Amino acid sequence: MRIALLGCGTVGQAFARMLAEQGGTITRASGRRLVIAGVLVRDVHRPRGGVDPSLVTDDAESLLADPDIDLVVEVMGGIDPTSEYLRRALEAGKPVVTANKQLVSRHGAELLELAASSGTELRFEASACAAIPVIKVLRESLLAAEISAVTGIVNGTTNYILTEMSRSGLSYREALAQAQELGYAEADPTEDVGGADAAAKMAILASIAFHTNVRFDDVPFEGIDGVQAEDLELSRDLGFVLKLLGIARLAHGGISVRVHPTLVPEGHRLASVMGPDNAVLLESDSVREIMLVGPGAGGTETASAVLSDVLSILGTAKGSFLHNALVDAGRSLIGPDQTESPFYVRLNVVDRPGVLAQVATVFAEAGLSIKSVIQRGAGDGAQLVLVTHVGSEAQMAAAIAAMREMDEVRGDPVLLRLLADGAA
Amino acid sequence: MRIALLGCGTVGQAFARMLAEQGGTITRASGRRLVIAGVLVRDVHRPRGGVDPSLVTDDAESLLADPDIDLVVEVMGGIDPTSEYLRRALEAGKPVVTANKQLVSRHGAELLELAASSGTELRFEASACAAIPVIKVLRESLLAAEISAVTGIVNGTTNYILTEMSRSGLSYREALAQAQELGYAEADPTEDVGGADAAAKMAILASIAFHTNVRFDDVPFEGIDGVQAEDLELSRDLGFVLKLLGIARLAHGGISVRVHPTLVPEGHRLASVMGPDNAVLLESDSVREIMLVGPGAGGTETASAVLSDVLSILGTAKGSFLHNALVDAGRSLIGPDQTESPFYVRLNVVDRPGVLAQVATVFAEAGLSIKSVIQRGAGDGAQLVLVTHVGSEAQMAAAIAAMREMDEVRGDPVLLRLLADGAA
Repeated sequence: MRIALLGCGTVGQAFARMLAEQGGTITRASGRRLVIAGVLVRDVHRPRGGVDPSLVTDDAESLLADPDIDLVVEVMGGIDPTSEYLRRALEAGKPVVTANKQLVSRHGAELLELAASSGTELRFEASACAAIPVIKVLRESLLAAEISAVTGIVNGTTNYILTEMSRSGLSYREALAQAQELGYAEADPTEDVGGADAAAKMAILASIAFHTNVRFDDVPFEGIDGVQAEDLELSRDLGFVLKLLGIARLAHGGISVRVHPTLVPEGHRLASVMGPDNAVLLESDSVREIMLVGPGAGGTETASAVLSDVLSILGTAKGSFLHNALVDAGRSLIGPDQTESPFYVRLNVVDRPGVLAQVATVFAEAGLSIKSVIQRGAGDGAQLVLVTHVGSEAQMAAAIAAMREMDEVRGDPVLLRLLADGAA
Repeated sequence: MRIALLGCGTVGQAFARMLAEQGGTITRASGRRLVIAGVLVRDVHRPRGGVDPSLVTDDAESLLADPDIDLVVEVMGGIDPTSEYLRRALEAGKPVVTANKQLVSRHGAELLELAASSGTELRFEASACAAIPVIKVLRESLLAAEISAVTGIVNGTTNYILTEMSRSGLSYREALAQAQELGYAEADPTEDVGGADAAAKMAILASIAFHTNVRFDDVPFEGIDGVQAEDLELSRDLGFVLKLLGIARLAHGGISVRVHPTLVPEGHRLASVMGPDNAVLLESDSVREIMLVGPGAGGTETASAVLSDVLSILGTAKGSFLHNALVDAGRSLIGPDQTESPFYVRLNVVDRPGVLAQVATVFAEAGLSIKSVIQRGAGDGAQLVLVTHVGSEAQMAAAIAAMREMDEVRGDPVLLRLLADGAA
């Protein structure tokens, strides 16, 4: 399967890297080897990580006309000449995967029509919320679910800015500057802060959710550039959190789609989505509410969505891969004794000098490091609550066994595990 | 496409209803009409809503041997004789969709192998977390994402009980009784509260995430039946929320999978998942963290997942449907003026008797009903903050225009919308 890659910026390079690294899995899944056969760029002399320089070209005509190309991946952005390139690929019956939200939200329906009439496919998961698979879920999992509303925080830059304004009392200008410093906002943030980026994504999501062609121009939008810190404060007092929401709903027998700063009740699912995260809430009578949350931007995140579209076109969803994967079990299960976490232990103890020292010795002998101890009550009703650093089940079992032998410990210790990143 | 439905309880009846209601969409999507051609039940005399009594049979042999059946949907549950029925269908080359977590977590690999060798498919989205499409996302969207951890609240009964214990200080027994009253727990809650239900789901999710055969028996589990209110209280003081988590991770070159009550740091994404909801957090270097949240049980929710599997088998994911749907736009967009929400309006006003009355008159004349008013400050720096009930953009625009004409209103009113269910 020979791929033409149109564009080789952050996303394109991440895609090339991922393809190289995941080659084994992909070949097992699809029975085919994916190779990048040509990379269209504007400046052939700029070095690009992970991409063979001999594949790079600035000659779109030849690359698109190459009969050996099986599939086109578009991550170059822009409307012109990009849309012409995609049209040509689809006309030639080549499947196309694009990450281009501006293009899909303006010309998606024509391109889909072209794909259908050429007997091929156009996929665009990465065009809305990067690796959050909201398009696949809407198109496939919820196809017959009669969606009544799609409500989303679909722009990470603005969610980061609003979160910081609300959390640290920064002004809009200050929060924007901070977002730019951290790479959450571009040097020219207009598309993001003005709401156009979110409007393009909502046009795409509403189209899929409501089986209707909603274009970018159909979506009225308002950004956060006019938001004042004062209103954030006031709305908090009223029990709300301010978010830039995209709202698409069935209403009055039609569809309403728009983007604007919105006061969300504190307890609402979307109110807890912070920082640069995106989240999309899908509502329907049959499935009630499903929410998808995750990073809505980023090079590898977007490339991952592009790759998943490529794999969907290859038909890896079919049963045989799953079978091969499960039966050829590449990995083994580690024993339950080896699983690790920090532990919480509550002990009923006799309140007597030296008890804590004895308990601490038991933990030390088991190789467990104590992070905190709280003593509660006194006399016969005294309790010790210990929290450890990460240790194994085997270590903890040894400590529990030793404590059961202690005269000063009454009854069975209560044991709970803590969720910790990086533990086994 | 003739479907044999094995089992006709809550899920089976919901599936039959959904198929009838969504027939149009499904036929447009797949180009085929789905019909239920036979329904296997134990007691043919019990009436079942939405199912034609003439289709009901207790003769499994004949139904499975019927050469006119194209696809088998299994929602009867249990291991025997169910697994034998599914084996027979797959051997005959018929695709099978099942919602049976106990069966898939015990015999999934053999059934998948059988499906592959017969050139057909086995799908089981509904077997883990009902309508939350976590299996599709893992299998398809994140196939090449190298998942490093799957962490989930995969049992709604226990999450409801823990939420209530924590929120209302109920004992485990009291919270369980309440859950049973509200239908969140079964009369015999053992599978749920003991952790076996969550363990079965984690075996399935870990298998897909790590491309490895993880069976129910491989998953050590502990339930919440021993959880004491005292530890919930103590852990809250320490900054944690107690959840029954399923944890599957790459660790020590292998995989670790288990289910146990776990202390989750308050700020963690999973800590905010309350009541009967399920949530699954998927981690990978390339996509960072994606979380899916929603109802993990229920008749229509489970039936919806079954139906999405059926549609995936029909190949509705292919481009032509999407094209048809978008181009045949069934619905129209309502005008921006017709969109509705409650509004927040902040006005700088001259603090003079009668100003509020004038503003209130303007709102009334526009047909907008005021929910709350706050006056802040005094003299020339006075402000009114008004929150309305649901109104339209047209109404609000009229009110804003009228306020701009008022001498007592200084500068431009600040306008924000509130998120509200049921508004257009």
